[in-house]
Amino acid sequence: MHVDELETPSVLIDLDRMERNIARMQDYCDQHGLAFRPHIKTHKCPEIARLQIEAGAVGIACQKISEAEVFAGAGFNDLQIPYNIVGAAKTARLVDLAMYNRVTVSADHLTVIAGLADAAGAEDLTLRVMVELATEIERAGAPVDEVVTLAQRIDAEPNLHFAGLLLYPSNPAIRPLLQEALDRLNHAGIGVDVVSGGGTGAAFHAHEIPELTEIRVGTYIFNDWATVSKGWAALDDCAMAVLATVVSRPTPDRAILDAGSKTLALDSVDGLHGFILEYPNARIYKLNEEHAYVDLSACDDRPVIGDRLHIIPAHTCVVSNLHNRLYGVRDEQIEVVWPVAARGRVW
Amino acid sequence: MHVDELETPSVLIDLDRMERNIARMQDYCDQHGLAFRPHIKTHKCPEIARLQIEAGAVGIACQKISEAEVFAGAGFNDLQIPYNIVGAAKTARLVDLAMYNRVTVSADHLTVIAGLADAAGAEDLTLRVMVELATEIERAGAPVDEVVTLAQRIDAEPNLHFAGLLLYPSNPAIRPLLQEALDRLNHAGIGVDVVSGGGTGAAFHAHEIPELTEIRVGTYIFNDWATVSKGWAALDDCAMAVLATVVSRPTPDRAILDAGSKTLALDSVDGLHGFILEYPNARIYKLNEEHAYVDLSACDDRPVIGDRLHIIPAHTCVVSNLHNRLYGVRDEQIEVVWPVAARGRVW
Repeated sequence: MHVDELETPSVLIDLDRMERNIARMQDYCDQHGLAFRPHIKTHKCPEIARLQIEAGAVGIACQKISEAEVFAGAGFNDLQIPYNIVGAAKTARLVDLAMYNRVTVSADHLTVIAGLADAAGAEDLTLRVMVELATEIERAGAPVDEVVTLAQRIDAEPNLHFAGLLLYPSNPAIRPLLQEALDRLNHAGIGVDVVSGGGTGAAFHAHEIPELTEIRVGTYIFNDWATVSKGWAALDDCAMAVLATVVSRPTPDRAILDAGSKTLALDSVDGLHGFILEYPNARIYKLNEEHAYVDLSACDDRPVIGDRLHIIPAHTCVVSNLHNRLYGVRDEQIEVVWPVAARGRVW
Repeated sequence: MHVDELETPSVLIDLDRMERNIARMQDYCDQHGLAFRPHIKTHKCPEIARLQIEAGAVGIACQKISEAEVFAGAGFNDLQIPYNIVGAAKTARLVDLAMYNRVTVSADHLTVIAGLADAAGAEDLTLRVMVELATEIERAGAPVDEVVTLAQRIDAEPNLHFAGLLLYPSNPAIRPLLQEALDRLNHAGIGVDVVSGGGTGAAFHAHEIPELTEIRVGTYIFNDWATVSKGWAALDDCAMAVLATVVSRPTPDRAILDAGSKTLALDSVDGLHGFILEYPNARIYKLNEEHAYVDLSACDDRPVIGDRLHIIPAHTCVVSNLHNRLYGVRDEQIEVVWPVAARGRVW
């Protein structure tokens, strides 16, 4: 089927670019002796993760147990969930998943570790638990002076295994803190098998932190207007585009597209909700759920009602989550249709 | 099932409040002789729309053909799509839908009307087309001096019926413009059956524009932090809450919840992504896909890891679109589970 036959809005994946992005990241990791663990949140499609594994990835990272369950069902067995899993219902599901898979989670607090220990103990199996180190984004994560306490507690639990350190993002500036954490663990006599970094922006700097043994990266596979704007990728590294139609031209300077926040999500870069390939000077300045507002005042040529445009979204991962299918395109033909199997998994 | 048994994040609907919101809006419309047409984008559940119809609504409004298809399949037959339907594939689907249902769409341009006429002509049936009048939100919509031209063109097409004027939002300030449009149509000898206004903020002001014959309103059924902040509803009119868990307390002033932009969407009010009922002074200042960042610095009491919190989302409609189920709650018991049947319909 030709891409022109697709209805809009639809999410197109340029297969040549995606394959090139997969190969480039794996080559980098291979060159530097790093394990590569793709974060599947960006695509949520087992078939795409399979391509990443075939290229050399060691396993996958997911952000939710429900996502890991989908991927386990599709045959993936090395599942890392870099998140505090909290509450008896969730830790029980985690243990179920760990019965037949290599499951690794993270923790940043004794309370989290206690919950994991209880659940693993109830089934008498061993959960792999990494300690998450706080970074400059000030999200979750333990401060460096708590790392030894947490690792010791994990190792003291008969049903938990201390599986290393995890951090996000692993920008080079974090190295002194990471070294301090490793020194403290070393002095406490605690072995650290894995040091897992992450983030598309940090990925190609991983060799500047030789302490890293693996990286988790998601966005690199498609890229988006955010990664381009930050200089992490070139425009022609963007493998995802949202195909949209001009549905209204109410004034000479304004176009309305059928790709709103239900299609592109509300993420933005410098206040703009994506980049229109056909009209580089157009500005997507506002989104309602079903309307994109486009300012054409800086455009010499301007689209008419019915024109179909390609939008590089501000943030690729959230677009995948909003759609039921991704269309893999090569030479303008739809070569493959991927159901977004782990879409909308919030548990 | 008790609400405490639900996993998080989950979307709770307070049934008492929802029923009260439905009744209040219908009573208002009944008192003022207005037809009421709920916009189903807010809940996307046929079972909930059925409650609105049973209360007295004349039909529904949807924002996409694919949403209308879901509701037609569930037995709803008066379907209004206040949107320019553009492109041969979409207009053909619209005509399919119009074979067995009363379907009304809007248009703001001759190009849109021509596409509708072609599709309706191919099947020799009649499509109902309203003209959308531009308003102060500067989205789609025709200027007042084009309304007669568009209405005449619709009426001149053998397979289109001019079904009236449509505007969003119908705030009282728009009245002079609406009157001008109606005067122009009157002078041109064009009858106007329906004048359809809309918007939760404008709803209870509809009687100030006696020219309106119907209103389309969505958000009123659940309300959200935006409608409360604008003074359109009270906090105890909010029927939707997202149940979330505190998964990390990395610093005394920060909590991380398991409800990120994949759960709450990125919509905000004054930069905040919702309101936490248990901690009114807490501020949800940032969202990643699976993390809400909460500033607790103004809170006397503070939550611990594992605590479950109720969040009134900034924007209710986009939350429904992200979830597969809504949980109807009364007296802390899950009384009903609604699948969000029209979730994720982007075509």
